[in-house]
Amino acid sequence: MTLRVLGVDPGLTRCGIGVVDVERNRRATMVAVGVVGTSPEETIDRRLLVIAEAIDEWLELHKPDVMAVERVFSQLNVSTVMGVAQASGVVIAAAARRGIPVALHTPSEVKAAVTGSGGANKDAVTKLITKILRLDAPPKPADAADALALAVTHAWRAGSGAAAATTGPGSNALTPAQRAWAEAEAKARRGR
Amino acid sequence: MTLRVLGVDPGLTRCGIGVVDVERNRRATMVAVGVVGTSPEETIDRRLLVIAEAIDEWLELHKPDVMAVERVFSQLNVSTVMGVAQASGVVIAAAARRGIPVALHTPSEVKAAVTGSGGANKDAVTKLITKILRLDAPPKPADAADALALAVTHAWRAGSGAAAATTGPGSNALTPAQRAWAEAEAKARRGR
Repeated sequence: MTLRVLGVDPGLTRCGIGVVDVERNRRATMVAVGVVGTSPEETIDRRLLVIAEAIDEWLELHKPDVMAVERVFSQLNVSTVMGVAQASGVVIAAAARRGIPVALHTPSEVKAAVTGSGGANKDAVTKLITKILRLDAPPKPADAADALALAVTHAWRAGSGAAAATTGPGSNALTPAQRAWAEAEAKARRGR
Repeated sequence: MTLRVLGVDPGLTRCGIGVVDVERNRRATMVAVGVVGTSPEETIDRRLLVIAEAIDEWLELHKPDVMAVERVFSQLNVSTVMGVAQASGVVIAAAARRGIPVALHTPSEVKAAVTGSGGANKDAVTKLITKILRLDAPPKPADAADALALAVTHAWRAGSGAAAATTGPGSNALTPAQRAWAEAEAKARRGR
Protein backbone atom coordinates (compact mmCIF):
# COMPACT_ATOMS: atom_id res chain seq x y z
CA MET A 1 0.00 0.00 0.00
CA THR A 2 0.94 3.62 -0.48
CA LEU A 3 0.48 6.56 1.86
CA ARG A 4 -0.13 9.87 0.10
CA VAL A 5 1.03 12.83 2.18
CA LEU A 6 0.51 16.51 1.41
CA GLY A 7 3.22 18.56 3.13
CA VAL A 8 2.86 22.26 3.81
CA ASP A 9 5.55 24.76 4.81
CA PRO A 10 3.17 27.55 5.84
CA GLY A 11 3.74 31.24 5.21
CA LEU A 12 1.95 34.30 3.85
CA THR A 13 4.58 35.39 1.33
CA ARG A 14 5.50 31.87 0.25
CA CYS A 15 3.59 28.76 1.26
CA GLY A 16 5.33 25.60 0.03
CA ILE A 17 3.13 22.62 -0.88
CA GLY A 18 4.34 19.16 -1.85
CA VAL A 19 2.63 15.81 -2.40
CA VAL A 20 4.44 12.47 -2.15
CA ASP A 21 3.42 8.84 -2.32
CA VAL A 22 5.35 6.69 0.13
CA GLU A 23 5.38 2.90 -0.04
CA ARG A 24 5.72 0.47 2.85
CA ASN A 25 9.40 -0.04 1.98
CA ARG A 26 9.90 3.74 2.49
CA ARG A 27 10.33 4.41 -1.23
CA ALA A 28 8.97 7.92 -1.83
CA THR A 29 7.79 9.38 -5.15
CA MET A 30 6.93 13.00 -5.82
CA VAL A 31 3.40 13.58 -7.11
CA ALA A 32 3.37 17.38 -7.24
CA VAL A 33 5.11 20.41 -5.81
CA GLY A 34 4.41 24.13 -5.83
CA VAL A 35 4.42 27.41 -3.99
CA VAL A 36 1.52 29.75 -3.29
CA GLY A 37 2.71 33.31 -2.92
CA THR A 38 0.92 36.44 -1.77
CA SER A 39 2.16 40.02 -1.74
CA PRO A 40 2.85 41.85 1.53
CA GLU A 41 1.04 44.77 -0.10
CA GLU A 42 -2.23 42.85 -0.03
CA THR A 43 -4.51 42.94 3.03
CA ILE A 44 -4.33 40.02 5.46
CA ASP A 45 -7.83 38.81 4.58
CA ARG A 46 -7.00 38.74 0.88
CA ARG A 47 -3.72 36.90 1.55
CA LEU A 48 -5.35 34.25 3.73
CA LEU A 49 -8.12 33.78 1.17
CA VAL A 50 -5.60 33.08 -1.61
CA ILE A 51 -3.88 30.48 0.58
CA ALA A 52 -7.19 28.90 1.66
CA GLU A 53 -8.36 28.57 -1.94
CA ALA A 54 -5.03 27.12 -3.08
CA ILE A 55 -5.03 24.50 -0.33
CA ASP A 56 -8.61 23.56 -1.15
CA GLU A 57 -7.59 23.01 -4.79
CA TRP A 58 -4.61 20.86 -3.82
CA LEU A 59 -6.69 18.75 -1.42
CA GLU A 60 -9.40 18.33 -4.05
CA LEU A 61 -6.95 17.39 -6.79
CA HIS A 62 -4.59 15.09 -4.88
CA LYS A 63 -6.84 13.64 -2.15
CA PRO A 64 -4.04 12.97 0.35
CA ASP A 65 -4.44 10.44 3.19
CA VAL A 66 -2.85 12.88 5.60
CA MET A 67 -1.51 16.44 5.77
CA ALA A 68 1.86 17.23 7.38
CA VAL A 69 2.44 20.84 8.46
CA GLU A 70 5.55 22.45 9.86
CA ARG A 71 5.10 23.25 13.53
CA VAL A 72 5.51 26.99 14.01
CA PHE A 73 8.04 28.25 16.50
CA SER A 74 9.01 31.71 17.56
CA GLN A 75 12.52 31.73 16.12
CA LEU A 76 11.27 34.27 13.61
CA ASN A 77 10.43 37.86 14.41
CA VAL A 78 7.01 38.46 15.92
CA SER A 79 5.19 39.87 12.89
CA THR A 80 6.51 37.08 10.65
CA VAL A 81 5.57 34.34 13.08
CA MET A 82 2.03 35.73 13.36
CA GLY A 83 1.56 35.48 9.60
CA VAL A 84 2.99 31.96 9.53
CA ALA A 85 0.67 30.90 12.36
CA GLN A 86 -2.37 32.48 10.67
CA ALA A 87 -1.53 30.71 7.40
CA SER A 88 -1.02 27.40 9.22
CA GLY A 89 -4.40 27.82 10.92
CA VAL A 90 -6.14 28.24 7.57
CA VAL A 91 -4.30 25.26 6.07
CA ILE A 92 -5.02 22.95 9.03
CA ALA A 93 -8.72 23.93 9.09
CA ALA A 94 -8.99 23.17 5.35
CA ALA A 95 -7.81 19.60 5.98
CA ALA A 96 -10.03 19.25 9.06
CA ARG A 97 -13.10 20.28 7.03
CA ARG A 98 -12.45 17.32 4.74
CA GLY A 99 -11.75 14.86 7.55
CA ILE A 100 -8.10 14.57 6.54
CA PRO A 101 -5.86 13.97 9.59
CA VAL A 102 -3.18 16.57 10.27
CA ALA A 103 0.26 16.00 11.80
CA LEU A 104 2.75 18.64 12.88
CA HIS A 105 6.51 18.18 12.67
CA THR A 106 9.29 20.48 13.80
CA PRO A 107 12.08 21.59 11.46
CA SER A 108 14.49 19.48 13.56
CA GLU A 109 12.39 16.37 13.05
CA VAL A 110 12.41 16.98 9.30
CA LYS A 111 16.16 17.51 9.21
CA ALA A 112 16.76 14.38 11.30
CA ALA A 113 14.46 12.22 9.14
CA VAL A 114 15.82 13.39 5.80
CA THR A 115 19.52 13.95 6.53
CA GLY A 116 20.08 11.91 9.68
CA SER A 117 21.01 15.04 11.66
CA GLY A 118 18.59 17.42 13.41
CA GLY A 119 21.15 20.20 13.03
CA ALA A 120 21.57 19.95 9.24
CA ASN A 121 21.26 23.13 7.17
CA LYS A 122 18.62 23.92 4.56
CA ASP A 123 20.93 23.11 1.65
CA ALA A 124 21.50 19.61 3.00
CA VAL A 125 17.73 19.05 3.28
CA THR A 126 17.20 20.21 -0.32
CA LYS A 127 20.05 18.06 -1.60
CA LEU A 128 18.84 14.93 0.16
CA ILE A 129 15.15 15.32 -0.66
CA THR A 130 16.19 15.65 -4.32
CA LYS A 131 18.03 12.33 -4.00
CA ILE A 132 15.28 10.59 -1.98
CA LEU A 133 12.65 11.51 -4.57
CA ARG A 134 15.01 10.74 -7.51
CA LEU A 135 14.48 14.21 -9.01
CA ASP A 136 16.58 15.58 -11.87
CA ALA A 137 16.97 18.97 -10.19
CA PRO A 138 16.44 20.38 -6.68
CA PRO A 139 12.89 21.66 -6.04
CA LYS A 140 12.84 25.46 -5.88
CA PRO A 141 12.30 27.64 -3.93
CA ALA A 142 13.42 26.21 -0.57
CA ASP A 143 9.80 26.33 0.70
CA ALA A 144 8.83 23.79 -1.96
CA ALA A 145 11.70 21.48 -0.98
CA ASP A 146 10.73 21.86 2.69
CA ALA A 147 7.14 20.88 1.96
CA LEU A 148 8.30 17.70 0.22
CA ALA A 149 10.72 16.94 3.06
CA LEU A 150 7.88 17.38 5.58
CA ALA A 151 5.69 14.96 3.66
CA VAL A 152 8.43 12.30 3.47
CA THR A 153 9.30 12.82 7.14
CA HIS A 154 5.71 12.29 8.14
CA ALA A 155 5.32 9.06 6.19
CA TRP A 156 8.56 7.61 7.53
CA ARG A 157 7.78 8.58 11.13
CA ALA A 158 4.13 7.52 10.94
CA GLY A 159 5.11 4.20 9.42
CA SER A 160 7.51 3.29 12.19
CA GLY A 161 5.15 4.64 14.85
CA ALA A 162 2.28 2.57 13.57
CA ALA A 163 4.42 -0.56 13.27
CA ALA A 164 5.55 -0.19 16.87
CA ALA A 165 2.04 0.44 18.12
CA THR A 166 0.47 -2.64 16.57
CA THR A 167 2.58 -4.84 18.83
CA GLY A 168 1.79 -3.20 22.14
CA PRO A 169 -0.73 -1.30 24.21
CA GLY A 170 0.58 2.03 22.96
CA SER A 171 -2.03 2.52 20.25
CA ASN A 172 -3.85 5.14 22.30
CA ALA A 173 -0.74 7.29 21.95
CA LEU A 174 -1.00 7.36 18.16
CA THR A 175 -1.57 10.65 16.40
CA PRO A 176 -4.60 10.74 14.07
CA ALA A 177 -2.19 10.44 11.14
CA GLN A 178 -0.52 7.39 12.64
CA ARG A 179 -3.95 5.88 13.23
CA ALA A 180 -4.80 6.60 9.58
CA TRP A 181 -1.67 4.77 8.48
CA ALA A 182 -2.33 1.85 10.81
CA GLU A 183 -5.94 1.60 9.62
CA ALA A 184 -4.87 1.79 5.97
CA GLU A 185 -2.35 -0.97 6.65
CA ALA A 186 -4.97 -3.13 8.28
CA LYS A 187 -7.34 -2.51 5.35
CA ALA A 188 -4.60 -3.43 2.87
CA ARG A 189 -3.96 -6.67 4.78
CA ARG A 190 -7.65 -7.54 4.76
CA GLY A 191 -7.80 -6.84 1.01
CA ARG A 192 -5.02 -9.26 0.15
CA MET B 1 -28.43 53.62 7.98
CA THR B 2 -26.98 50.99 10.26
CA LEU B 3 -23.61 49.25 10.12
CA ARG B 4 -23.67 45.67 11.37
CA VAL B 5 -20.31 44.58 12.76
CA LEU B 6 -19.32 41.10 13.90
CA GLY B 7 -16.49 41.34 16.43
CA VAL B 8 -14.20 38.43 17.24
CA ASP B 9 -11.79 38.07 20.15
CA PRO B 10 -9.90 35.08 18.75
CA GLY B 11 -8.62 32.14 20.78
CA LEU B 12 -8.61 28.35 20.79
CA THR B 13 -9.94 27.80 24.31
CA ARG B 14 -12.42 30.68 24.19
CA CYS B 15 -13.28 32.64 21.05
CA GLY B 16 -15.60 35.56 21.83
CA ILE B 17 -18.10 36.57 19.14
CA GLY B 18 -20.41 39.58 19.26
CA VAL B 19 -22.69 41.27 16.73
CA VAL B 20 -23.79 44.90 17.04
CA ASP B 21 -25.79 47.29 14.89
CA VAL B 22 -24.41 50.82 15.00
CA GLU B 23 -26.34 53.81 13.73
CA ARG B 24 -24.93 56.99 12.20
CA ASN B 25 -25.43 58.80 15.51
CA ARG B 26 -23.14 56.17 17.14
CA ARG B 27 -26.00 54.50 18.99
CA ALA B 28 -25.06 50.81 19.25
CA THR B 29 -27.41 47.88 19.84
CA MET B 30 -26.42 44.30 20.61
CA VAL B 31 -27.75 41.71 18.16
CA ALA B 32 -26.08 38.59 19.54
CA VAL B 33 -23.16 37.50 21.68
CA GLY B 34 -21.52 34.17 22.43
CA VAL B 35 -18.36 32.20 23.03
CA VAL B 36 -17.04 29.21 21.12
CA GLY B 37 -14.87 27.05 23.32
CA THR B 38 -12.64 24.11 22.51
CA SER B 39 -10.76 21.84 24.89
CA PRO B 40 -6.95 21.88 25.08
CA GLU B 41 -7.24 18.07 25.09
CA GLU B 42 -8.52 18.11 21.51
CA THR B 43 -6.13 18.06 18.55
CA ILE B 44 -5.35 21.37 16.85
CA ASP B 45 -7.15 20.39 13.65
CA ARG B 46 -10.32 19.49 15.57
CA ARG B 47 -10.15 22.76 17.55
CA LEU B 48 -9.72 24.91 14.44
CA LEU B 49 -12.54 23.05 12.70
CA VAL B 50 -14.96 23.79 15.55
CA ILE B 51 -14.04 27.49 15.38
CA ALA B 52 -14.28 27.59 11.58
CA GLU B 53 -17.74 26.00 11.62
CA ALA B 54 -18.97 28.32 14.37
CA ILE B 55 -17.81 31.44 12.53
CA ASP B 56 -19.45 30.20 9.33
CA GLU B 57 -22.73 29.81 11.21
CA TRP B 58 -22.51 33.30 12.72
CA LEU B 59 -21.69 34.88 9.35
CA GLU B 60 -24.54 33.00 7.71
CA LEU B 61 -27.05 33.91 10.41
CA HIS B 62 -26.16 37.57 11.01
CA LYS B 63 -24.77 38.66 7.63
CA PRO B 64 -22.51 41.43 9.00
CA ASP B 65 -21.28 44.30 6.80
CA VAL B 66 -17.81 43.96 8.27
CA MET B 67 -15.82 41.78 10.67
CA ALA B 68 -13.59 43.31 13.37
CA VAL B 69 -10.87 41.07 14.83
CA GLU B 70 -8.49 41.75 17.68
CA ARG B 71 -4.98 42.23 16.37
CA VAL B 72 -2.73 39.58 17.92
CA PHE B 73 0.37 40.65 19.78
CA SER B 74 3.05 38.68 21.52
CA GLN B 75 2.30 39.84 25.05
CA LEU B 76 1.14 36.29 25.73
CA ASN B 77 3.41 33.28 26.03
CA VAL B 78 4.55 31.74 22.76
CA SER B 79 2.32 28.66 22.67
CA THR B 80 -0.78 30.73 23.54
CA VAL B 81 -0.06 33.37 20.92
CA MET B 82 0.36 30.69 18.24
CA GLY B 83 -3.09 29.31 18.98
CA VAL B 84 -4.61 32.78 18.98
CA ALA B 85 -2.96 33.55 15.64
CA GLN B 86 -4.09 30.25 14.13
CA ALA B 87 -7.67 30.88 15.28
CA SER B 88 -7.58 34.44 13.93
CA GLY B 89 -6.34 33.13 10.57
CA VAL B 90 -9.30 30.77 10.31
CA VAL B 91 -11.76 33.48 11.34
CA ILE B 92 -10.37 36.07 8.90
CA ALA B 93 -10.35 33.56 6.01
CA ALA B 94 -14.01 32.70 6.72
CA ALA B 95 -14.97 36.36 6.26
CA ALA B 96 -12.75 36.71 3.18
CA ARG B 97 -14.43 33.71 1.53
CA ARG B 98 -17.75 35.56 1.78
CA GLY B 99 -16.37 38.89 0.58
CA ILE B 100 -16.91 40.46 4.01
CA PRO B 101 -14.23 43.10 4.74
CA VAL B 102 -12.05 42.52 7.79
CA ALA B 103 -10.54 45.16 10.08
CA LEU B 104 -8.01 44.59 12.84
CA HIS B 105 -7.92 46.65 16.04
CA THR B 106 -5.47 46.52 18.92
CA PRO B 107 -6.61 46.10 22.53
CA SER B 108 -5.45 49.70 23.17
CA GLU B 109 -7.66 51.01 20.38
CA VAL B 110 -10.63 49.17 21.85
CA LYS B 111 -9.96 50.49 25.36
CA ALA B 112 -9.54 54.03 24.05
CA ALA B 113 -12.72 53.91 21.97
CA VAL B 114 -14.92 52.41 24.67
CA THR B 115 -13.53 53.96 27.86
CA GLY B 116 -11.65 57.01 26.57
CA SER B 117 -8.33 55.64 27.87
CA GLY B 118 -6.01 53.21 26.06
CA GLY B 119 -4.68 52.05 29.41
CA ALA B 120 -8.05 51.08 30.94
CA ASN B 121 -8.39 47.65 32.50
CA LYS B 122 -10.65 44.82 31.36
CA ASP B 123 -13.26 45.50 34.03
CA ALA B 124 -13.67 49.07 32.80
CA VAL B 125 -14.19 47.83 29.23
CA THR B 126 -16.84 45.34 30.36
CA LYS B 127 -18.59 47.95 32.49
CA LEU B 128 -18.71 50.54 29.72
CA ILE B 129 -19.72 48.19 26.92
CA THR B 130 -22.61 47.10 29.15
CA LYS B 131 -23.66 50.73 29.45
CA ILE B 132 -23.08 51.58 25.77
CA LEU B 133 -25.25 48.66 24.65
CA ARG B 134 -27.87 49.32 27.39
CA LEU B 135 -27.61 45.73 28.67
CA ASP B 136 -29.19 44.59 31.95
CA ALA B 137 -26.07 42.66 32.97
CA PRO B 138 -22.42 42.54 31.85
CA PRO B 139 -21.75 40.07 29.02
CA LYS B 140 -19.81 37.03 30.30
CA PRO B 141 -17.16 35.75 29.96
CA ALA B 142 -14.74 38.62 29.33
CA ASP B 143 -14.07 37.31 25.80
CA ALA B 144 -17.72 37.93 24.89
CA ALA B 145 -17.57 41.49 26.24
CA ASP B 146 -14.32 42.05 24.33
CA ALA B 147 -15.89 40.88 21.09
CA LEU B 148 -18.75 43.37 21.52
CA ALA B 149 -16.31 46.14 22.41
CA LEU B 150 -14.29 45.36 19.28
CA ALA B 151 -17.40 45.60 17.12
CA VAL B 152 -18.44 48.95 18.61
CA THR B 153 -14.88 50.26 18.34
CA HIS B 154 -14.75 49.38 14.70
CA ALA B 155 -18.02 51.09 13.83
CA TRP B 156 -17.10 54.25 15.70
CA ARG B 157 -13.61 54.44 14.19
CA ALA B 158 -14.77 53.52 10.68
CA GLY B 159 -17.57 56.07 10.88
CA SER B 160 -15.29 58.93 11.79
CA GLY B 161 -12.65 57.76 9.30
CA ALA B 162 -15.15 57.68 6.47
CA ALA B 163 -16.57 61.07 7.41
CA ALA B 164 -13.12 62.63 7.39
CA ALA B 165 -12.17 60.97 4.12
CA THR B 166 -15.17 62.17 2.15
CA THR B 167 -13.95 65.74 2.52
CA GLY B 168 -10.36 65.27 1.43
CA PRO B 169 -7.98 63.35 -0.80
CA GLY B 170 -7.34 60.77 1.91
CA SER B 171 -9.85 58.22 0.64
CA ASN B 172 -7.08 56.02 -0.73
CA ALA B 173 -5.96 55.51 2.84
CA LEU B 174 -9.26 53.92 3.83
CA THR B 175 -9.31 50.34 4.99
CA PRO B 176 -11.70 48.04 3.12
CA ALA B 177 -14.06 48.31 6.10
CA GLN B 178 -13.96 52.10 6.01
CA ARG B 179 -14.64 52.01 2.29
CA ALA B 180 -17.60 49.68 2.96
CA TRP B 181 -18.98 52.19 5.45
CA ALA B 182 -18.38 55.13 3.09
CA GLU B 183 -20.05 53.27 0.24
CA ALA B 184 -23.00 52.30 2.42
CA GLU B 185 -23.32 55.93 3.50
CA ALA B 186 -23.28 57.12 -0.09
CA LYS B 187 -25.89 54.52 -1.00
CA ALA B 188 -28.10 55.59 1.91
CA ARG B 189 -27.84 59.24 0.80
CA ARG B 190 -28.82 58.33 -2.76
CA GLY B 191 -31.77 56.32 -1.44
CA ARG B 192 -33.28 59.22 0.49
